[in-house]
Amino acid sequence: MSKTYNFCAGPAALPEPVMLRAQQELLDWNGLGVSVMEISHRSKDYQELANKAEKDLRNLLDIGDEFAVLFLQGGASLQFASIPMSLLHSGREAEYVENGVWSKKAAEEAARFGKVNMINAVNIDENGIRSLTDSQSWNRTENPAYTHFTSNETIEGMRFSQVPQTNGPLIADMSSCILSERLDMKAFDLIYAGAQKNIGPAGMTIVIVKRELFEQMKFDGLPKVFNYEAQAKNGSMLNTPPTFAWYLASLVFDWLQEQGGVMRMEELAKQKSQLVYDCIDEDDFFTNPIAVKDRSMMNIPFFLKNESLSEKFLIQAQEAKLMGLKGHRSLGGMRVSLYNSVPLEGAQALVKFMREFKTLNG
Amino acid sequence: MSKTYNFCAGPAALPEPVMLRAQQELLDWNGLGVSVMEISHRSKDYQELANKAEKDLRNLLDIGDEFAVLFLQGGASLQFASIPMSLLHSGREAEYVENGVWSKKAAEEAARFGKVNMINAVNIDENGIRSLTDSQSWNRTENPAYTHFTSNETIEGMRFSQVPQTNGPLIADMSSCILSERLDMKAFDLIYAGAQKNIGPAGMTIVIVKRELFEQMKFDGLPKVFNYEAQAKNGSMLNTPPTFAWYLASLVFDWLQEQGGVMRMEELAKQKSQLVYDCIDEDDFFTNPIAVKDRSMMNIPFFLKNESLSEKFLIQAQEAKLMGLKGHRSLGGMRVSLYNSVPLEGAQALVKFMREFKTLNG
Repeated sequence: MSKTYNFCAGPAALPEPVMLRAQQELLDWNGLGVSVMEISHRSKDYQELANKAEKDLRNLLDIGDEFAVLFLQGGASLQFASIPMSLLHSGREAEYVENGVWSKKAAEEAARFGKVNMINAVNIDENGIRSLTDSQSWNRTENPAYTHFTSNETIEGMRFSQVPQTNGPLIADMSSCILSERLDMKAFDLIYAGAQKNIGPAGMTIVIVKRELFEQMKFDGLPKVFNYEAQAKNGSMLNTPPTFAWYLASLVFDWLQEQGGVMRMEELAKQKSQLVYDCIDEDDFFTNPIAVKDRSMMNIPFFLKNESLSEKFLIQAQEAKLMGLKGHRSLGGMRVSLYNSVPLEGAQALVKFMREFKTLNG
Repeated sequence: MSKTYNFCAGPAALPEPVMLRAQQELLDWNGLGVSVMEISHRSKDYQELANKAEKDLRNLLDIGDEFAVLFLQGGASLQFASIPMSLLHSGREAEYVENGVWSKKAAEEAARFGKVNMINAVNIDENGIRSLTDSQSWNRTENPAYTHFTSNETIEGMRFSQVPQTNGPLIADMSSCILSERLDMKAFDLIYAGAQKNIGPAGMTIVIVKRELFEQMKFDGLPKVFNYEAQAKNGSMLNTPPTFAWYLASLVFDWLQEQGGVMRMEELAKQKSQLVYDCIDEDDFFTNPIAVKDRSMMNIPFFLKNESLSEKFLIQAQEAKLMGLKGHRSLGGMRVSLYNSVPLEGAQALVKFMREFKTLNG
C-alpha cells in the first residue's frame, strides 16, 4: 500500500511521529493511567507540559522575555476582534494591509470597532499576475494605533518575504506560516497564529505579544478572557485551556527541535515549494497567478489551462493518495499546502503525479 | 494491575470505549488514511460527522427544532461575556442566581456589560450546612432581560433539583451536569456547557439556544463569532471549529445512546452519588456541608473531621489508583466528581477505600 500524503490547507497534516506518539500514549500519559486530556490543567504534570511547550516555542522562534507567549482559544478570527477591541480606541486609526481574503476579513472585523485605513497592497498586471506593491507607495496613516498584516495569504498563496515598514506597533497574522521560516522578533509587537496549520489541531491560537504593548491596551467592557495581560499573568489559564491541543503542540515543538528547528523547516519549505513551482512553470499546462517574488512557500493555488480537466485531476490525485488538493471554494482549481508536516517525499510524489498527468493529458 | 479510576472535576475522565476507539482510528479515520483532526471541517466526511453529532445530541436531550445547537470555542467563561453582551442592553436588568463560585463569576462578568440583580440563593445554618432558598423568597427583577442560574455548582457540590421560576428568558450554565439527568427543554431559552466534564475534551462549548431569542439579541460591536444567529446559520463554522473535540463529543454521544441514554445516566448518577453520600453520612468521620435535598450528583466535596489526615487520605488514594480527589484550592479537603464516564465500579472502589481508611484511622 502506498502512503497517503495530505496537502490540506487547514486543519492540516500533523507530523507522523507526533501522531504515532499521541496514539501510543492516548490512554496512559506520563504514567498516570489516564489520558492527558483527562487531567486538570492545574495539575503538576500538566503544568510541566504547558511550561515546557512555552519554553520550546521560545527556543524555536528565539522569543525573548520582553514577549509573553499565550495559548488561547477562539481561532485567529477571535483575534481579529480582540486586537482592535483592546488597541483601537480614542479616535485613533489602525492600518490594515490587504493582500487577500484573510487580511480583508481582519480589516473588516476591525472596522466594526474603530477607524481603519485599509491599504490595498496588491497589483494585478495585464496578464492577471498578482504582486505585492512597495510599502513606499502605500497611503500610510501618520501615527497608527498599529499596522496589521498577514504574512502569508492561505487562499491566494501570497507571502510577504519582507516585513513591511511601519511607524507604530506591528501586528502579524502568521497562521499559515509560523514556524516555517525564521523570524526577527524585534520587528514585531504582536504575532498570532491559529494552530491548525503549522502548530497542532484546530481549537488553539498562539499569541506572542510584547509586554510593552499591554500599556496601550484597554480591557474595560471586554470579555475577561480577552485581557492579554491577565492571560499572560495567569499562564493562559484564566479559564480551562484546550489542553489536548496544547499537548499536541508540545509534541510538534519537540519534533521540530529534533528536525533541526525553524532553519531546517525554512530550507525544506523552499525545496518543497520550488519543486512544485518548477513543475507549474515549465510550460503552460498548469498556471499560478502570483509573481515569483511574492509566492507563498506554504500554499500554492494552481490551475489547469484546460479547466475542464480539473475534476479528473482531483479524482486521480485522490486515487493516488494525494489528498486535500481541491482549491478553495472562492477560487476553484487546485491548491497544495506544504506545511512543515508535509515531508519532501510528499512534494516529490505530487510533482511526479502532476508530470504524469501532464504527459497523459497534455 | 488494578484499574485507575479518575475522579477529576474537569478536564475529566472520558468513557473508556470512546478513548479506545479514538486511539484505534487516530491515524486513519473513516478510511481516509489520515486523522480526523487533519482534514478540512468543510469536507464531506467531516460535515457528516458534525451533523450526526448534532442529531445525536438532539436525540439524547430531546431538543426540538425551535432550538439551535451550537458547537463553539472559548469555554463557558466566554459565554459569561457573550450572553450579556448580546442580550443585556437598553438599561434592562438581568437576574443572576448565585449559589457558588461559578454562578458568581458569571454574574460578575455580566455586571461589566450591564445591570445585574445578583440573587443570593444560599442559606447557611448554624451548623454550616448550606441549602438553596425557595425562589419565592428571592428579591426578583420585575421584567428581567433574562434569568441566569448554574444548575450544578462544581466546587460547592450543590444542585438545583428544580428549575427556578422565572418571568423572562431562562438561561442555565449546565457545564457540570449536562447529559447526566433528563431535561425539560421547554423550561429553557439558552443552555450552555463547557465540554470538559460530561461531553468531551476541554476547548469546546455547547450552546443550545431557542431561535426566538435571536430576536432579542444585538450583535453590533461584538466579535463576529459571538453572533449566535450567524453561528446557527453557518453550522457553527463561521470560523474553523475545534474539530477533534467535536469528533470526541460525537463518540461520547454514540456511547451514551448505547448505554441507554440520559435516563440511564440519571439512574447511575443517583446510584453512584448515593453510595458516596451514604459512606459520608454513616458517621462523623467524613463530612459534606450541603443539605441533602440540594446535594450534587456530579461533584461531592467532602472533608475529614480530623483534617490532619487529609494528606494521608489523598496519598493513599493515589496509591490505590483513585485519582483526582484533591479538593478545589478554594475549599481544601477532598472532592469526588462522578460524571457519566465514571463507572459504578469506580464509585464502589472509592467507597471501599473510604471505609477501609475509616477503619484504619477512625
